[in-house]
Amino acid sequence: MNTNIRLTLPVVCFVWQIAMIILFGVFIRYDEESNTHWVETKAHNNITSDIENDFYFRYPSFQDVHVMIFVGFGFLMTFLKRYSFGAVGFNFLIASFGLQWALLMQGWFHSLDPQTGKIFIGIESLINADFCVAGCLIAYGAVLGKVSPVQLLVMTLFGVTLFAVEEYIILNLLHARDAGGSMVIHTFGGYYGLAISWVLYRPNLHQSKRMQGSVYHSDTFAMIGTLFLWMFWPSFNSAITDHGDGQHRAVINTYLGLASTVLTTVAISSLSQKTGKLDMVHIQNSTLAGGVALGTAAEFMISPYGALIVGFFCGIISTMGYIFISPFLEKTLKIQDTCGIHNLHAMPGVIGGIVGAITAAAASESVYGKQGLINTFDFTGDFKDRTVLTQGGYQAAGMCVSIVFGVVGGAIVGSILKLPIWGDPADENCFDDEVYWEVREPATHPLLWLCTGTEHSVLNSGQIRIY
Amino acid sequence: MNTNIRLTLPVVCFVWQIAMIILFGVFIRYDEESNTHWVETKAHNNITSDIENDFYFRYPSFQDVHVMIFVGFGFLMTFLKRYSFGAVGFNFLIASFGLQWALLMQGWFHSLDPQTGKIFIGIESLINADFCVAGCLIAYGAVLGKVSPVQLLVMTLFGVTLFAVEEYIILNLLHARDAGGSMVIHTFGGYYGLAISWVLYRPNLHQSKRMQGSVYHSDTFAMIGTLFLWMFWPSFNSAITDHGDGQHRAVINTYLGLASTVLTTVAISSLSQKTGKLDMVHIQNSTLAGGVALGTAAEFMISPYGALIVGFFCGIISTMGYIFISPFLEKTLKIQDTCGIHNLHAMPGVIGGIVGAITAAAASESVYGKQGLINTFDFTGDFKDRTVLTQGGYQAAGMCVSIVFGVVGGAIVGSILKLPIWGDPADENCFDDEVYWEVREPATHPLLWLCTGTEHSVLNSGQIRIY
Amino acid sequence: MNTNIRLTLPVVCFVWQIAMIILFGVFIRYDEESNTHWVETKAHNNITSDIENDFYFRYPSFQDVHVMIFVGFGFLMTFLKRYSFGAVGFNFLIASFGLQWALLMQGWFHSLDPQTGKIFIGIESLINADFCVAGCLIAYGAVLGKVSPVQLLVMTLFGVTLFAVEEYIILNLLHARDAGGSMVIHTFGGYYGLAISWVLYRPNLHQSKRMQGSVYHSDTFAMIGTLFLWMFWPSFNSAITDHGDGQHRAVINTYLGLASTVLTTVAISSLSQKTGKLDMVHIQNSTLAGGVALGTAAEFMISPYGALIVGFFCGIISTMGYIFISPFLEKTLKIQDTCGIHNLHAMPGVIGGIVGAITAAAASESVYGKQGLINTFDFTGDFKDRTVLTQGGYQAAGMCVSIVFGVVGGAIVGSILKLPIWGDPADENCFDDEVYWEVREPATHPLLWLCTGTEHSVLNSGQIRIY
Repeated sequence: MNTNIRLTLPVVCFVWQIAMIILFGVFIRYDEESNTHWVETKAHNNITSDIENDFYFRYPSFQDVHVMIFVGFGFLMTFLKRYSFGAVGFNFLIASFGLQWALLMQGWFHSLDPQTGKIFIGIESLINADFCVAGCLIAYGAVLGKVSPVQLLVMTLFGVTLFAVEEYIILNLLHARDAGGSMVIHTFGGYYGLAISWVLYRPNLHQSKRMQGSVYHSDTFAMIGTLFLWMFWPSFNSAITDHGDGQHRAVINTYLGLASTVLTTVAISSLSQKTGKLDMVHIQNSTLAGGVALGTAAEFMISPYGALIVGFFCGIISTMGYIFISPFLEKTLKIQDTCGIHNLHAMPGVIGGIVGAITAAAASESVYGKQGLINTFDFTGDFKDRTVLTQGGYQAAGMCVSIVFGVVGGAIVGSILKLPIWGDPADENCFDDEVYWEVREPATHPLLWLCTGTEHSVLNSGQIRIY
Repeated sequence: MNTNIRLTLPVVCFVWQIAMIILFGVFIRYDEESNTHWVETKAHNNITSDIENDFYFRYPSFQDVHVMIFVGFGFLMTFLKRYSFGAVGFNFLIASFGLQWALLMQGWFHSLDPQTGKIFIGIESLINADFCVAGCLIAYGAVLGKVSPVQLLVMTLFGVTLFAVEEYIILNLLHARDAGGSMVIHTFGGYYGLAISWVLYRPNLHQSKRMQGSVYHSDTFAMIGTLFLWMFWPSFNSAITDHGDGQHRAVINTYLGLASTVLTTVAISSLSQKTGKLDMVHIQNSTLAGGVALGTAAEFMISPYGALIVGFFCGIISTMGYIFISPFLEKTLKIQDTCGIHNLHAMPGVIGGIVGAITAAAASESVYGKQGLINTFDFTGDFKDRTVLTQGGYQAAGMCVSIVFGVVGGAIVGSILKLPIWGDPADENCFDDEVYWEVREPATHPLLWLCTGTEHSVLNSGQIRIY
Repeated sequence: MNTNIRLTLPVVCFVWQIAMIILFGVFIRYDEESNTHWVETKAHNNITSDIENDFYFRYPSFQDVHVMIFVGFGFLMTFLKRYSFGAVGFNFLIASFGLQWALLMQGWFHSLDPQTGKIFIGIESLINADFCVAGCLIAYGAVLGKVSPVQLLVMTLFGVTLFAVEEYIILNLLHARDAGGSMVIHTFGGYYGLAISWVLYRPNLHQSKRMQGSVYHSDTFAMIGTLFLWMFWPSFNSAITDHGDGQHRAVINTYLGLASTVLTTVAISSLSQKTGKLDMVHIQNSTLAGGVALGTAAEFMISPYGALIVGFFCGIISTMGYIFISPFLEKTLKIQDTCGIHNLHAMPGVIGGIVGAITAAAASESVYGKQGLINTFDFTGDFKDRTVLTQGGYQAAGMCVSIVFGVVGGAIVGSILKLPIWGDPADENCFDDEVYWEVREPATHPLLWLCTGTEHSVLNSGQIRIY
């Protein structure tokens, strides 16, 4: 099981981290609100209180998003019986690299100061970096257990790069709105991961069948991830929306949409089994689909019942995805999607893009108010004459961009990851932490297999004799 | 073990969720601070900064409360060896339904606009909805493992309804103060659950004795719930108190009271065992009693040492409740209280009501200041001539209302839940996730029983033969 | 295994808690921002909005710090296979006592009002109390599994006392800056714990060898602690820094430094194994070293790439500490350091002190601005003529003070704890929850040993016969 990552993993970590330090030294500086010159900025702009520093508007949301990235995504993927270290640990690794690279890439595209050639960062930059990383962590879900940490780092390097470009096109050029990232984060991340998984298809993956699936405690650990994602999703969708009513409304919409999703997820999950029993896979994942689908429209005046309706259908569609579409994708399209990101991110992301486009196109001055409409869609500067109908069109165009970037980018990156140099596990060792981690108790001990539920068949095979 | 919830659970989920959508469509709208018209409201009210939106006063507390509801209550109940899915999962389900229904019920009673016939919601509404749900989750603790998810949904439907009514009587008609809900949430929720459990008494519950109690890891999972409840309780008690000193003081008092409770809980737990060993049941639950008991008085000038005293006695009383009162309730009064909510919520809630009444009656202008007294007890409008002594009386009356609503409401709802149509588990299948959940490793495998500590006796009974 | 704590533990808990109540009654009062007189204070100081109450600047950070103290430290120590109750439970106990005692000790030294003889507390006091407790919890890491809860309480009593004194010397007399406590918290706490562990050296600790080390699930639990510490460390380092840019900058620096640490930790961990496999011990602990080392300098203009560099080296040094220094300390210096606090707190704390001294000495008006320099280093009052070079010197002096207090204080307290009256466990019972906790499934059952990975050798010893 020597995957030779002892050479590549430390080299990649060291070299890339040193590169980050150099690039940060050249490009990254504190912005005016995180700089000791803030006292002068305040005087200059007639700001009377420190509380008007953007920090106080966004820091609570930032910390919630931060928890989603590291505990949320990390623990959600611990459901496999013997891949908890890889789930939490590699998630930790690639997010830590990705957020540094994201600060640079997003900085170059969005906030490079033309005069100084510097990128000035503040709390909003940190949130955006976390968001960017989220796209790559979603993609990780598709290939969980089948790739090496080095492959994950490569995937993150390119993922962040592609993300920054598609985000620039969607938000800046098309001037679409996507504060919670239905398109930019979830649709892109979902298709990026699926395309990579498609290229890395393993026809003999059944050889590690015994390691797939969960055990009782691993499912409980995964619920930690689910719940922190679910609870903090209102912060995710509101973290970078407008101060005041923008953040307030995005929270209300996401809160409601997610609640609605839980009920329909439970309903479909129960319906799908002859005995009416619930499936933890659905509860862990599909309950989150409503948050994904409100990523674009949460800041709009979609109205509370509108949010409930979006959540309602997403719970149904996402759960049905686990029941019908995932097996189809694996069998027919040869896409092995470990965590079912197609059902949790890709499909709900597309729905979110469509909902956003429709809600934008249907916006009216009577509902939003004259100034409210301008604020919400940022109809200023070059875009001050844009109509809501046009805006709806650009929203839809944005969604197409995110899909194209995900699919094409993922296919290309997948091809790179197919090179036989990255130390990925053999088919029979997939989903097994022992490939990349020191595991103290040997999973090869037959009685321990029993205990962890790994190898029930052993019992019948006559191999255990205890005297 | 077919409990036939395949029919009822999906139907209830779908129908109720559709009803929510319709009722939200008719009644619920964004309030002026979460509306795009906020820009006009600001101008109209001479508000200079977006930071004065109530969102920024309450959102951090809201998210803490949200974590308490879903992770706190959910994981606290995972202590049973094989009921973690039910604990976390059904908690998730009923809270998600309950918060929607609570927004409507509380809206109709507290904030229905007479002119438009609409309910306008903002961040404080979301907190109140979470609070309302907390009452039902407390009640769930009494019947944990013995009811079906459909019963839980019915219990939540009626629980939220009763809650909104008693809350209206206590807070609006009696004009009692109860920001952290010692009376409104904990006393009501506690007695509601106990009364239901009393009606649903199962004389043959010993048949599932093997599934009661905890194993090592389930106790560790439960500590996640305990700690998140404990840490965020200051946010719970301060979430809807007055801006400024009100929130500030409620946090300090709750923080101190809870710290004090931990020490006396440990002391009594150690005393109660011949060997002086500590019991995880006490540490998981009784350490929280101080937070419950400060639900009313936390916003008052109870003074730091006053908060310590309340916590001191609650730790003692709650732990003694687990040692002496719970067995008595089960044996004599036929109340089977799975989580011991009598010791964690009902008794400390009553103590909190009494402490609140005394603290209110003892309030004085010399301590509070003239305006401070008016602000704290909201002696305005119809109540501007109320004295602190009268206020103390009304506080005590409020506590009685919450007990009566809990006991009578619980008895009635219990009778409804006794109907043989809800798919509740047989006596020998209580506390077992396999009734309602797909569990991947069979708990019926004798060696797995060993691993999870379920059935030690098997070993001696000569049933295991491994070849 | 009767350790006789049934007598001492309840007595200590009761007596000390009663002492706290009395001392709080005499000394502790609400400050002007948590007092009902705030309405008058506002009017008097021309404060226009409640949002300018310090509560709103610091409460989100406080709650994050609170989570670090109870869930972060508590769960980080659950990595041992059978000491999760002791890790989480005793952490809970001593933190709850310690924070009360810290409010008094820190109050007497830092904020005793000379006129009234009272200590006025607000949100910043709570944060400082949590910080003070952190020092003692760090020390707990060194003696985890080897001491009784009574010893821990004694250790906390003296630890908090010593902390308040060294903090007074460093922050007030030397006027050093140390907002995140590299020196005051981590260096002191680290050496305090190491010195105690050195005095309490157990030559026959190998007798409980079977209980040392982790199992699969306990390592996963520990990652909950790691991640909550890692995610919320930006709040830790910024919780009491200056309003506005001070908090903002401290967050950015800590966020970046920690990200950098993760990559170098992974690199060294992989390099250290012939097979390149990662070790969970490193991932759980060394990834946090960057946060420790930025405790002093996070509020300075260390610049983003400076933070990355600090994190870079700390990941390397801390991981190498686990590989090379810990075995050396145990073998040669007779210091048994259960959690490796030397690598996670002591060394990175010293690095943090040095980084702080250098960064302070290198500060310039061109970078900070005239007023910015005064604000950052608080060059006001008696210290208004201090130069940055002098400040650097005092920072370095502060670090020496924290080391001396830790080593000398720990040696003295260790001698007290060596008295044979505290009920500490026998050598063969260390790291075993059964000494102090009711554990429901007997760890003595051989098949359960297998399941929990406790006693693999039994299998080969011919003791198990199942028929």
